[in-house]
Amino acid sequence: MFSTAELGQKLSKKEFKKIETVLRRELLEAQRQLRERALTPVIIIFAGVDGAGKGMTVNRLNEWMDTRWLINRAYREPTDEEIERPEFWRYWRDLPPKGRIGLFLSAWYSKPVLDQAYGNTSIFQLDKRIDRILAFENALAEDGALILKFWMHLSRDAQEIRYKMLEKDPLLSWKVTKKDWDHWRRYDTFIAAAERVVMRTNMANAKWTIVEGSDDKFSGISVANTILDALRKQLDKSQENNNTTTPMPNTTTLTHSGNPQKLQSVVNVKGKPQRDNKPVQLLSSKTVFSHLDMSPCLNKPDYKLQLKTLQARLNLLHRNALQIGISTIVIFEGPDAAGKGGAIRRMIPALDPHIYQVLPFAAPTEEERAQHYLWRFWRHLPRAGHVTIFDRSWYGRVLVERVEGFATEQEWCRAYSEINDFEEQLVMQGSVLVKFWIHITKKEQLKRFKARQKTPYKNWKLTDEDWRNRAKWKEYEMAAHDMVQYTSLPTSPWVLVEGNNKYFARIKVLQTLVNAIEKGIASVVS
Amino acid sequence: MFSTAELGQKLSKKEFKKIETVLRRELLEAQRQLRERALTPVIIIFAGVDGAGKGMTVNRLNEWMDTRWLINRAYREPTDEEIERPEFWRYWRDLPPKGRIGLFLSAWYSKPVLDQAYGNTSIFQLDKRIDRILAFENALAEDGALILKFWMHLSRDAQEIRYKMLEKDPLLSWKVTKKDWDHWRRYDTFIAAAERVVMRTNMANAKWTIVEGSDDKFSGISVANTILDALRKQLDKSQENNNTTTPMPNTTTLTHSGNPQKLQSVVNVKGKPQRDNKPVQLLSSKTVFSHLDMSPCLNKPDYKLQLKTLQARLNLLHRNALQIGISTIVIFEGPDAAGKGGAIRRMIPALDPHIYQVLPFAAPTEEERAQHYLWRFWRHLPRAGHVTIFDRSWYGRVLVERVEGFATEQEWCRAYSEINDFEEQLVMQGSVLVKFWIHITKKEQLKRFKARQKTPYKNWKLTDEDWRNRAKWKEYEMAAHDMVQYTSLPTSPWVLVEGNNKYFARIKVLQTLVNAIEKGIASVVS
Repeated sequence: MFSTAELGQKLSKKEFKKIETVLRRELLEAQRQLRERALTPVIIIFAGVDGAGKGMTVNRLNEWMDTRWLINRAYREPTDEEIERPEFWRYWRDLPPKGRIGLFLSAWYSKPVLDQAYGNTSIFQLDKRIDRILAFENALAEDGALILKFWMHLSRDAQEIRYKMLEKDPLLSWKVTKKDWDHWRRYDTFIAAAERVVMRTNMANAKWTIVEGSDDKFSGISVANTILDALRKQLDKSQENNNTTTPMPNTTTLTHSGNPQKLQSVVNVKGKPQRDNKPVQLLSSKTVFSHLDMSPCLNKPDYKLQLKTLQARLNLLHRNALQIGISTIVIFEGPDAAGKGGAIRRMIPALDPHIYQVLPFAAPTEEERAQHYLWRFWRHLPRAGHVTIFDRSWYGRVLVERVEGFATEQEWCRAYSEINDFEEQLVMQGSVLVKFWIHITKKEQLKRFKARQKTPYKNWKLTDEDWRNRAKWKEYEMAAHDMVQYTSLPTSPWVLVEGNNKYFARIKVLQTLVNAIEKGIASVVS
Repeated sequence: MFSTAELGQKLSKKEFKKIETVLRRELLEAQRQLRERALTPVIIIFAGVDGAGKGMTVNRLNEWMDTRWLINRAYREPTDEEIERPEFWRYWRDLPPKGRIGLFLSAWYSKPVLDQAYGNTSIFQLDKRIDRILAFENALAEDGALILKFWMHLSRDAQEIRYKMLEKDPLLSWKVTKKDWDHWRRYDTFIAAAERVVMRTNMANAKWTIVEGSDDKFSGISVANTILDALRKQLDKSQENNNTTTPMPNTTTLTHSGNPQKLQSVVNVKGKPQRDNKPVQLLSSKTVFSHLDMSPCLNKPDYKLQLKTLQARLNLLHRNALQIGISTIVIFEGPDAAGKGGAIRRMIPALDPHIYQVLPFAAPTEEERAQHYLWRFWRHLPRAGHVTIFDRSWYGRVLVERVEGFATEQEWCRAYSEINDFEEQLVMQGSVLVKFWIHITKKEQLKRFKARQKTPYKNWKLTDEDWRNRAKWKEYEMAAHDMVQYTSLPTSPWVLVEGNNKYFARIKVLQTLVNAIEKGIASVVS
């Protein structure tokens, strides 16, 4: 899930300065209102990879905000006093009261992740600790606390470079200890533990924001902006609850985004606070898709050859899977005209019609609307050994339903963990689950739409809705970014397929699927 | 916790008939409205001890309600179809749609409890299963489903009697199998597992109701009445949300009680539906306190002798506890003038002033009100080896705050699990936790109030508030009953002290405390 925070996002010094000025003013104003109205305690947690700028971010916030109403908390080994009480005593006594903001460094997340990374706890013990965190945060959130959690990310390589740079500087080399290198050597197990913890503690009322930590100017602005957004939302909400219709001074209602990197913010280009509800795109916000190299191509002869080989392989494999009872569940998501149907049609010839089905999902039926949104997918789960292909899926909740407003923010926010729970059950039961996001560029989509208009037998495929969706390209991309971020479990990651070249995309899909089924069979047979 | 459902509550045939007539009419009406407005799915679960009448209750509901809109589900070993899918697939496909009621027999609660009782799972595995249930029910409840869960209880002896009676009847003996007797022999482990499951799955949006199952007429009416209450509440709520001000036909707003045995219901004595908001007390509702034998006395010489002995013992023990670092936390709750202060004063002479403190709790301070309600108790947790006596405690949330409306129903409902989580942390950390409810009869309280009025140096103790609280005796008793029910964990049970005789009460308190500290020390030393 953290790969969504390896996009190389940066801010120049000039950009940083420009935003900083406005952001500081607005942060102070929000903080003032929070304090005067003594609305709610604000609990902000900074966890993540060492060197990703947790400490620097806390320092910056102290610089930018009114320190009289900030509480900073970092934790070392428990004191005598603390050892003699339950583990959470130190956190309880440090909680900020209503109207104040507490900045917590790692806090209750540090030990569970590290103990797991160092192999000191079993998965059950880790889960037990996660339960305790959930109960703690939930009790506070239900009581009205605003909880914001930032996971500051850095790739393994970036962490190494950061440490080496620090070591070279005689004034900063003290910052890197032997322990830091120990941690670094365990980067992968650390990340695996962190993914589980972050995923399972990502609640609608205490959400994680994953922050790219490679550029401290970017991450600083990104964090501060998310905090400002959340504070304003809280202030607006309480305003509504009070039934006062007078608008707050100096504030803007900002469209909330689940996406941290999206700096839809605060200020317009001239640095003036906005007065309407439209967020302004300050930076070209990057998504995980901006990272994709969309150039790879495959020529027709190569494509044909590989297609044949892979189809033969798939045919063999899916019959083996049937014999040992391994089900395969394949999901396709992606923009309109990305080539989902085409990819599916290249799979079908390889499959035995007795044991596969393709299920297209559009708007739910009346019967389905009378149930929980996951119900219609549960009912279609395949029998052992069967192959089910979902052309669009349960991710509609966090894509189209989110963007079009068919689901409330509450609803799509909690869908991430509901979906993770659902997929965990599928995988635990032994199914092979493969999730494809076929991506195309906006330009490529236009080309395909126009081609459809011209080709009589493809004409029906293009509807007004397709054009309407295209107009919301950015919103859909943001939603998809969040989806990839919050639902890429180690056991069911998203596979991003570069789809501008159809041949390439189809082969990548087939190859991935074949590999996944092979792996699934091997895990049972061995 | 289930001992609160061993009160021997009964209904005569005549009483039953009278209530049944009205209840049926009202149930049908509520069901009709639910269906016509297709408001929400209703999921009702019946779990509990075999022989406590789960099946009979489901049958009765089918008799009383419109079966066209009822869905009955009982589960045996999973079918081929079901084995090939994740465990919860069978439950997902059986879910009722909006406007319908699903009656589920044991369902997803059966296997976790039985596997644990038979020693097939570890506590970690049980907790993992509980997590899955929580995620499942929470997803449905957040989506708007109304979830009601009934735990039908029967004591070990009552179960034995029930089985033997059935076995004697040639027409009914088929009902008792070898498996039933196997289960019965494991009654205690079964109950221990069930307590953990019920306690941990008792959520504000999916609450358990513990039902005394020894008299099927009583349990049938009790269950149906709780269902009716919940349906009406749901209907009223949706009415409010729709902003329609027209009252619903044929319905009454009923005061909700967390207490299942409290038949504050539906009908007045003449069997007419109520038109106002006042609940009518149909039966003399019993609480766990009605079970207490309030007669035991102790004469003064015996009291003095035992007091001396126990104080000496306590002195020795609490110094031992200090040496090995075991903290002791003692809680006192009970009606005004129950003798909490007197009991505390008899402990103090035995304690070293360096290592104990008595903390009286009344209304929270301003500083405390700016925090979560548990915060002010967390901050007073003792250092290792110390003794802290709480004169009133965190249970204020579910007692005075509930009765006086200082906490919303949402707030005090979720407090049960928050408190359980809190106390679990205390016990896990090694503290000895003893919770006393000192009980007196209403008559005894009056006597003491009058004595206070007359005795000049006790006069100050009696305030107007005491009289006001006395007027709400029944509500306070109900709240205390629910408290005992939902927060008597195996590791921190409530100790009910018969307080009409002060000598007896003080000795019972001291004796219990001494035993608890002894046990705590032994568990560390051994």
